[in-house]
Amino acid sequence: MFPRRVLCGIQPSSVPHVGNYLGAVKKWIDLQNSGDNLVVMLADLHAVTIPREPEVLRKSILETAASLLACGIDPKRSIIYRQSQLPHHTELNWLLSTLTTVQKVAHIPTYKSKVKDDAPIPLGLFLYPVLQSADILLFKTTHLPVGEDQIPHLQLCTYMIEKFYHYYKQNIFPVPELLATETNRIRSLRRPEQKMSKSDFEERARIDIMDDEDVIRERVMKALTDFNSQISYDRQQRPGVSNLIDIYAGISGQSIETIVKEAQRDNLNTGAFKKQLAQLIIEHFRPKRLEYLKLLDDRSHLLSILENGRERAREIADKTLNEVKDVMGL
Amino acid sequence: MFPRRVLCGIQPSSVPHVGNYLGAVKKWIDLQNSGDNLVVMLADLHAVTIPREPEVLRKSILETAASLLACGIDPKRSIIYRQSQLPHHTELNWLLSTLTTVQKVAHIPTYKSKVKDDAPIPLGLFLYPVLQSADILLFKTTHLPVGEDQIPHLQLCTYMIEKFYHYYKQNIFPVPELLATETNRIRSLRRPEQKMSKSDFEERARIDIMDDEDVIRERVMKALTDFNSQISYDRQQRPGVSNLIDIYAGISGQSIETIVKEAQRDNLNTGAFKKQLAQLIIEHFRPKRLEYLKLLDDRSHLLSILENGRERAREIADKTLNEVKDVMGL
Repeated sequence: MFPRRVLCGIQPSSVPHVGNYLGAVKKWIDLQNSGDNLVVMLADLHAVTIPREPEVLRKSILETAASLLACGIDPKRSIIYRQSQLPHHTELNWLLSTLTTVQKVAHIPTYKSKVKDDAPIPLGLFLYPVLQSADILLFKTTHLPVGEDQIPHLQLCTYMIEKFYHYYKQNIFPVPELLATETNRIRSLRRPEQKMSKSDFEERARIDIMDDEDVIRERVMKALTDFNSQISYDRQQRPGVSNLIDIYAGISGQSIETIVKEAQRDNLNTGAFKKQLAQLIIEHFRPKRLEYLKLLDDRSHLLSILENGRERAREIADKTLNEVKDVMGL
Repeated sequence: MFPRRVLCGIQPSSVPHVGNYLGAVKKWIDLQNSGDNLVVMLADLHAVTIPREPEVLRKSILETAASLLACGIDPKRSIIYRQSQLPHHTELNWLLSTLTTVQKVAHIPTYKSKVKDDAPIPLGLFLYPVLQSADILLFKTTHLPVGEDQIPHLQLCTYMIEKFYHYYKQNIFPVPELLATETNRIRSLRRPEQKMSKSDFEERARIDIMDDEDVIRERVMKALTDFNSQISYDRQQRPGVSNLIDIYAGISGQSIETIVKEAQRDNLNTGAFKKQLAQLIIEHFRPKRLEYLKLLDDRSHLLSILENGRERAREIADKTLNEVKDVMGL
């Protein structure tokens, strides 16, 4: 009944790191290249949930867009645009907020991890999953390439779809499904028991995919491993070296088994393996980085791509929002 | 620093009753006619906080608009439009929600009166004062002709203005002031200890200003008074007859003192006074009712007035929203 459509949302916090790339961006590009209809949304309305430095945010939005395009998001096939340039998100957000309750939203665990007990809860953070549901429903999204941590958000979305049907007897929204993502989550290069994160205070704990070659090499070489210099894979006992193998596998497309077998065959110690990995990362991103710099250099071209994406997104969003308003009597 | 601008919001629940008229609509028209810049907003996004019958809502919106125009809102001088036709409200609503906390909003007493302890709190109802702040700030409103029950909402609005300044160091919003409204609140014709209300289950407890003459006469004649047939004013001891005198005063523009003195001079009992009041109401609204029916009869003209109002509102709203987004880095 509903045509397959995939929504890919990303916080516009500048260049993705290797974890974002392997866990999300690369998968989106694979979906696009196998023929899926993608809507790639730069979630800048979600970004301001916590106040940002305006100049930094403005710059980050463009850098995020350029990164995605350089990695292979094709604006002829996929729709790529900025959320804040389509007021439909916030309109639907309001209309959906009439379908749920404070208690339902308070039940979602996400914001709790960001706020200490009894501390003031920023309202934007609290409402994040409602806006996210609006993002999803605006495009009648059928599939979401997100992790299982998003299940409570999807449940809220499904609840609002049911309530809409309950009040207005119209079945206009598909219930979105998770697109299982199988890769192991890439972890910090410094504390491999944690995931790689933009908000890590230690910059060398991560590699941003547009970092220059020297930075990439240095970060890989200084990645924390253990006192065993052999290459073997064990995420529990040897998180550091296993994380490097995960990155190798994600980028090369080879299986973990093959990578370990070849490293052992060639008698590589961790130092030599790191050298090989650094080279792999550098070569994988070199052409993307050139494209990235080119895109950033032609700002008006970049803006026109986002503007064009906005117009295509608007066509879909207009239809949905008119339908919702009509059903509600607005 | 900020030019004087008055925002008048009204829930589009069809024809106003006499209480709405004297307490709000008539005052707006007086402000307009004495030269104020009015934005008259049909608050249909607030109306759907509780799900409505779509057909009833659609009809009510037009009837509310026609009532206001028939009473004297002049679309050449004032801006009259539908809130849901300007996405700027919900956009600013989202941006403001990043400036406050769940606890701040929960502190506002309004929704509590509508929800039993521990019952689920509809999210739209909870967020009502945030959207209301967006309405106010979107037009850089300087004055609000609302009652003192709105003070907690205004405090939230002021809090968000302060937070915006705190985070972004830009002073772009005036702090809105209450426009004192002095009239006594008109009360139910059946239970004069309560205010006249659209949600009263007893229709005859109120008079809608476009009711036909027989209905008006019947409602006034059957208004609850007491066992004293003389005319005197005492809101505590004689709420029924005092309420009728308040209506008389509001419509005629005469003072309560004069009305009572003349009734006593003419030896009017409550029955005779009611007859006179009914006649006064009927004559006051007769030309307005004719205009109202004419407006409803020419739907496309009515819609074009609202469309034109929307365009004028949009000009102001565009400016404010662009300014806010620019300051926030969006």
